[in-house]
Amino acid sequence: MIIEGKNAILEALKADKTIDKLLLQQGKDSLGRIFALAREKKIKVQFVHAKVLDKMHKGENHQGCIAYISDFHYTKFDTFLERQERTRFVILCDGIQDVQNLGSIIRVAECAGATGVVIAKNNAAQVTDTVMRTSAGAVNHIPVARVTNINVAIEELQQSGYWVYGLEADGENIYDGVNLQGDIALVVGGEDKGLKALTRKNCDKILSIPLKGKITSLNASVALAIVSYEKVRQSEKL
Amino acid sequence: MIIEGKNAILEALKADKTIDKLLLQQGKDSLGRIFALAREKKIKVQFVHAKVLDKMHKGENHQGCIAYISDFHYTKFDTFLERQERTRFVILCDGIQDVQNLGSIIRVAECAGATGVVIAKNNAAQVTDTVMRTSAGAVNHIPVARVTNINVAIEELQQSGYWVYGLEADGENIYDGVNLQGDIALVVGGEDKGLKALTRKNCDKILSIPLKGKITSLNASVALAIVSYEKVRQSEKL
Repeated sequence: MIIEGKNAILEALKADKTIDKLLLQQGKDSLGRIFALAREKKIKVQFVHAKVLDKMHKGENHQGCIAYISDFHYTKFDTFLERQERTRFVILCDGIQDVQNLGSIIRVAECAGATGVVIAKNNAAQVTDTVMRTSAGAVNHIPVARVTNINVAIEELQQSGYWVYGLEADGENIYDGVNLQGDIALVVGGEDKGLKALTRKNCDKILSIPLKGKITSLNASVALAIVSYEKVRQSEKL
Repeated sequence: MIIEGKNAILEALKADKTIDKLLLQQGKDSLGRIFALAREKKIKVQFVHAKVLDKMHKGENHQGCIAYISDFHYTKFDTFLERQERTRFVILCDGIQDVQNLGSIIRVAECAGATGVVIAKNNAAQVTDTVMRTSAGAVNHIPVARVTNINVAIEELQQSGYWVYGLEADGENIYDGVNLQGDIALVVGGEDKGLKALTRKNCDKILSIPLKGKITSLNASVALAIVSYEKVRQSEKL
């Protein structure tokens, strides 16, 4: 879906809509505020010739700016917290940057029977079209919520009765030695730095997966899959 | 690494070297045989202006063709079959097409302590630079062998004392109900079609991972990770 014109795009930016890409007309002075806001929100900006915009636009006047917007519908975080019939199992992403990784994580979460995925609104990959595709359509079958602060979400989950476990290569607990039955949340860290220091501190336990070779880490979605399926295995042994 | 000239490239093609990309000069008639062979081996071919080749080439005469070649060193398949001190654990790829998937599979294999990876010479992703990168360097720490026929390899593994298990969404055995200790080989199928019919027939058992949501399959490297780490778990419980 594309939207055009300064006001429409400013509103979308302020409303935290997922903008996949923003096209701005080269050499146009009046777009400074939109550019600054897009930079702040880490949206991909491309400067193009006016002719490119003229070709694309469908409405009255693009005013030098057109945005590709994702019409993905996020779930409210509170929905996860409401008591449900089945065991609750939430995945939190702490700073995943790569959209393909986010898509893979959502696919794993859906396959392993998780009840929701939480991402941060800022400095993190959002649900773009690439995420939808990489998730193999899983985004349509599992609720995804956005929160301003992952650590506030962790606290609310804990107050609501979840055990919150972070995944990290050097965690002090081997994942399959921990009881994963019942309501749990698993937190996966960003590609480069893993869990943030504060997130790590707020988790009830840090779980690690033993690495048998020389490589020092697994991909985030792979690590999530191993621990999530250990939860499935333990739960079915009940 | 690049190689140039008709003879050098023909030799590389015949020797099944891993050619990441082949550049051919536009409108040059004498390259038909190279083009046909490259097509047959599913090598990426790009037609470029003579100037592009002139800029790149370092030797006497590029004769209208330059190839990017991967200097990855494959292991002999027999090496896997020789009796080793540790438990043998081999991963076979049955028609993985995507180099990123192959890289992820090799990374998972190395992390889970597999002793080797087998790929097919034809109609399958080879170890290109992208594979090296996606594997996070794992290709340097685990032997990778190429075979002409995956099914011959399966038979040799079985004769050498391995149990060979295929992974498939509709397999008749839930993976964690099967004894995965001892010498085993896991076979992962291609992205679209999964295991080939003959491969499936030759496996000792077909293992499946229960899917708790609506999505009907997991990514190949993710599925491999779940089953491989169940092997690790079972083996450490001994």
